[in-house]
Amino acid sequence: MNSNARSTPYLKNTWYVAAASHEVSDQPLGRKICNERMVFFRNENQIISALEDFCPHRGAPLSLGRVCKGKLVCGYHGLEMGCDGKTVAMPGQRVRGFPPIRSFPAVERYGFIWVWPGDAAQADATAIPHQAWYDHPEWAYGGGLYHIQCDYRLMIDNLMDLTHETYVHASSIGQKEIDETPCKTTVEGQQVVTSRHISNIEAPPFWRMALRGNGLADDVRVDRWQICRFTPPSHVMIEVGVAHAGHGGYEAPPEHKVSSIVVDFITPETDTSIHYFWGMARHFQAQNAELTDSIRAGQGKIFSEDLEILERQQQNLLDHPGRALLMLNIDAGGVQARKVIDGLLAAEKKQTDLTS
Amino acid sequence: MNSNARSTPYLKNTWYVAAASHEVSDQPLGRKICNERMVFFRNENQIISALEDFCPHRGAPLSLGRVCKGKLVCGYHGLEMGCDGKTVAMPGQRVRGFPPIRSFPAVERYGFIWVWPGDAAQADATAIPHQAWYDHPEWAYGGGLYHIQCDYRLMIDNLMDLTHETYVHASSIGQKEIDETPCKTTVEGQQVVTSRHISNIEAPPFWRMALRGNGLADDVRVDRWQICRFTPPSHVMIEVGVAHAGHGGYEAPPEHKVSSIVVDFITPETDTSIHYFWGMARHFQAQNAELTDSIRAGQGKIFSEDLEILERQQQNLLDHPGRALLMLNIDAGGVQARKVIDGLLAAEKKQTDLTS
Amino acid sequence: MNSNARSTPYLKNTWYVAAASHEVSDQPLGRKICNERMVFFRNENQIISALEDFCPHRGAPLSLGRVCKGKLVCGYHGLEMGCDGKTVAMPGQRVRGFPPIRSFPAVERYGFIWVWPGDAAQADATAIPHQAWYDHPEWAYGGGLYHIQCDYRLMIDNLMDLTHETYVHASSIGQKEIDETPCKTTVEGQQVVTSRHISNIEAPPFWRMALRGNGLADDVRVDRWQICRFTPPSHVMIEVGVAHAGHGGYEAPPEHKVSSIVVDFITPETDTSIHYFWGMARHFQAQNAELTDSIRAGQGKIFSEDLEILERQQQNLLDHPGRALLMLNIDAGGVQARKVIDGLLAAEKKQTDLTS
Repeated sequence: MNSNARSTPYLKNTWYVAAASHEVSDQPLGRKICNERMVFFRNENQIISALEDFCPHRGAPLSLGRVCKGKLVCGYHGLEMGCDGKTVAMPGQRVRGFPPIRSFPAVERYGFIWVWPGDAAQADATAIPHQAWYDHPEWAYGGGLYHIQCDYRLMIDNLMDLTHETYVHASSIGQKEIDETPCKTTVEGQQVVTSRHISNIEAPPFWRMALRGNGLADDVRVDRWQICRFTPPSHVMIEVGVAHAGHGGYEAPPEHKVSSIVVDFITPETDTSIHYFWGMARHFQAQNAELTDSIRAGQGKIFSEDLEILERQQQNLLDHPGRALLMLNIDAGGVQARKVIDGLLAAEKKQTDLTS
Repeated sequence: MNSNARSTPYLKNTWYVAAASHEVSDQPLGRKICNERMVFFRNENQIISALEDFCPHRGAPLSLGRVCKGKLVCGYHGLEMGCDGKTVAMPGQRVRGFPPIRSFPAVERYGFIWVWPGDAAQADATAIPHQAWYDHPEWAYGGGLYHIQCDYRLMIDNLMDLTHETYVHASSIGQKEIDETPCKTTVEGQQVVTSRHISNIEAPPFWRMALRGNGLADDVRVDRWQICRFTPPSHVMIEVGVAHAGHGGYEAPPEHKVSSIVVDFITPETDTSIHYFWGMARHFQAQNAELTDSIRAGQGKIFSEDLEILERQQQNLLDHPGRALLMLNIDAGGVQARKVIDGLLAAEKKQTDLTS
Repeated sequence: MNSNARSTPYLKNTWYVAAASHEVSDQPLGRKICNERMVFFRNENQIISALEDFCPHRGAPLSLGRVCKGKLVCGYHGLEMGCDGKTVAMPGQRVRGFPPIRSFPAVERYGFIWVWPGDAAQADATAIPHQAWYDHPEWAYGGGLYHIQCDYRLMIDNLMDLTHETYVHASSIGQKEIDETPCKTTVEGQQVVTSRHISNIEAPPFWRMALRGNGLADDVRVDRWQICRFTPPSHVMIEVGVAHAGHGGYEAPPEHKVSSIVVDFITPETDTSIHYFWGMARHFQAQNAELTDSIRAGQGKIFSEDLEILERQQQNLLDHPGRALLMLNIDAGGVQARKVIDGLLAAEKKQTDLTS
């Protein structure tokens, strides 16, 4: 049974975030990604490997083992697995004929471990999207990971239509004016952009906290912006911020605004579950670690409010598989993102059919 | 996929209790009934509506939303749903072409919300069975709700054969004489009645508590009665009581007895799970709220003793689907009730087949 | 639906341990064995019966009832079931025509209840393997029961390849020299024996504790042995011990060694779950009850370390049903045990096909 042969709703010849860098320490990490159980570990030089989480000896999960001198040692009978999926040694055994296990291209970059679940020959690390905020003195990053029982596309929909903030996040970032301000969606190649600019409003609580964090008055009118950028397979970067009203909004000089990028890497675990890596890259007061912590806590609380609605929406859709959903102007971002994904899925299927 | 097309073990063109009145407040209530996820809410005049729990926009459950000026506002993106399943408004949208969602006839009566899961055109609120004890100065009511993983007919069987009290409820209402006294079952149209009259016995603990509650001696011989009345689809009302012996038993004047109606509304959630609304309508000391509380607590404890046996009986029956069960004289109430149900199910199927 | 008709991965015409004797007291015990829900109870003479856990009246589990004068009384409506699966009595009923339920041959022996899930006509209590250590003044026994979600054969593999001790039990009984010392596997009829003798090593912590418990020095070199004996259907007895080095190892006189039998009775619950009865029969300081307790606690902790690896190995194998596992020399014990089982399964199937 080759799980690649099955038609899946997600791309496989692409890079996904598998873990935050700190999750893979001197212990291996087991995680299912695109329906494959994988194990991630570091060798002596901290280089990351990703393998099938399946010992070729008796099928035990290698993630229950430990790393010893750069090899992954199975925790059941001591088979030593190399970074390439080939057995290196086993006490008292000749291992040359041992069947290899699958190795997945994996790269550590921008504070994350990235993995390529598809055809390894096509993996190109230069295709990992550059994160300009990473390791930059003017930017600070904080984030977390949620496990959610929903199709990864429901999370893309969620992030490409921020009118939900008015309802799901009413007490923190939501406000009536989001709803009342039309958004604009454009497609540039594989990138889908939905943007909304709101003028001369009161800042909601989360942004008042941010204004104070940047030493700015929080009780004056502001301009607010939300620019959501989807890129395949399932990344959504959202430029967000507020500026004191009348200074140019999104274009305002730094001393009049607080601005950030909401970072969303959505990784399919199965057809109906995801690992959701969320965070915020902040372009003000970058050296203030305490502010990073309080923003992370605030964002974590806000983003947790989406979980129940996404999981129960998924249940409803599974109960009514044939029912068509509406595609309004506010849904255009998600709709266009799905079109991009569908096009790439068709191309991937065509290529896989040709080569198999 | 039309869930109506599937053959179900329960009637759909009938009234079921969906909730106790107090469960539907200013917040909507989500509940699955007859395999349909429904949402119940009140408009500004406290009138109840029941709709599919599915927002036509993106499939989110409407029960996670809130009621605002009589409309049900979706908690995801703010769609405003009317009482009839038609979208009333949505910020920034024209909603005329939005597909309606299903609306279920719903009525509030006798302290409960009643719902009709089948063909709305046939719903007739006058068919809701009258509860004479409701809002009557001589009667008091207390009850509760249990969720049980069993076919609703197993609960009907349970309530129509009270010999189980001797074994399941040995320490409260059970006593050997129930077992030893034959019952009599009659069918009058769609009503099945199983009755048992026991003379000159000691009252068991629950009834001694009730006698004391009514200011009567609890250490004298009593006559006891149990008259179980099944009516479709799945209501079982049980007249129960004890009178000081020699005063006429069931017919004894009020000053010599304690008498109540055990109220059982059994609502299928799925083919093998139920919402079980249990209670007791008491025809003595109606103004004593403290007595109502202690009877409710006692009944709740007693009725919870049935849960494990019903759920594990269900498991056994699922494991052995072809095995015939015995139908003894004590089972006659349940057997006759199932006959009534089967006849109505056949009629409902015939009618549905004709009209579809 | 006859569950016998289905091809199963375990033998049915054989004796399995169903329970430790103390588990069946004056209350009945319900337990699923070889996919059959069974109830075990004792009559007035403490004789054990095993029946289907299914009341012929309405399918309630008899294990929720109680034993009264040697009969098993159903906890739902009081049916009295005899030891042979025939109904003895029921209040107010003639029971002669009641259908019998299945009775399984059951015997209490060596501190355990043994059951024969297959054709009762073939059950022969003399085939229950003799446990020489039972009720013997020179031996002491302590043990326990674990429920594990894995095919019973994975546990046989585990016990027939003790190189896993080096990795799974590194801090107690594991040591590098197990890995480094080849084992030898022989088959004698239906018995498979894998043995390993290790000379002149340091004793690991568990065995140092045992040496001290027997009044022997724990800081001198020892010889260590492990002799694993599989017999069908799924028993693994392992002779283990250490002797002060140079006194003959396994053959050393009692005053120079500590020796025990690890007792493993593995009973299939379903195709992928087991009841695992583990214990240790100790051939030193038999009268020291405190030592029995501390060895039981130590063994329980050590054996619990296998649970996660076995359950996750099972998950991996279910995910990859077609993948061949390696069969190395260390796996020979398990491989040969499976050959014995496969031969007996084929014979059992042939016989069942002939007689059905």
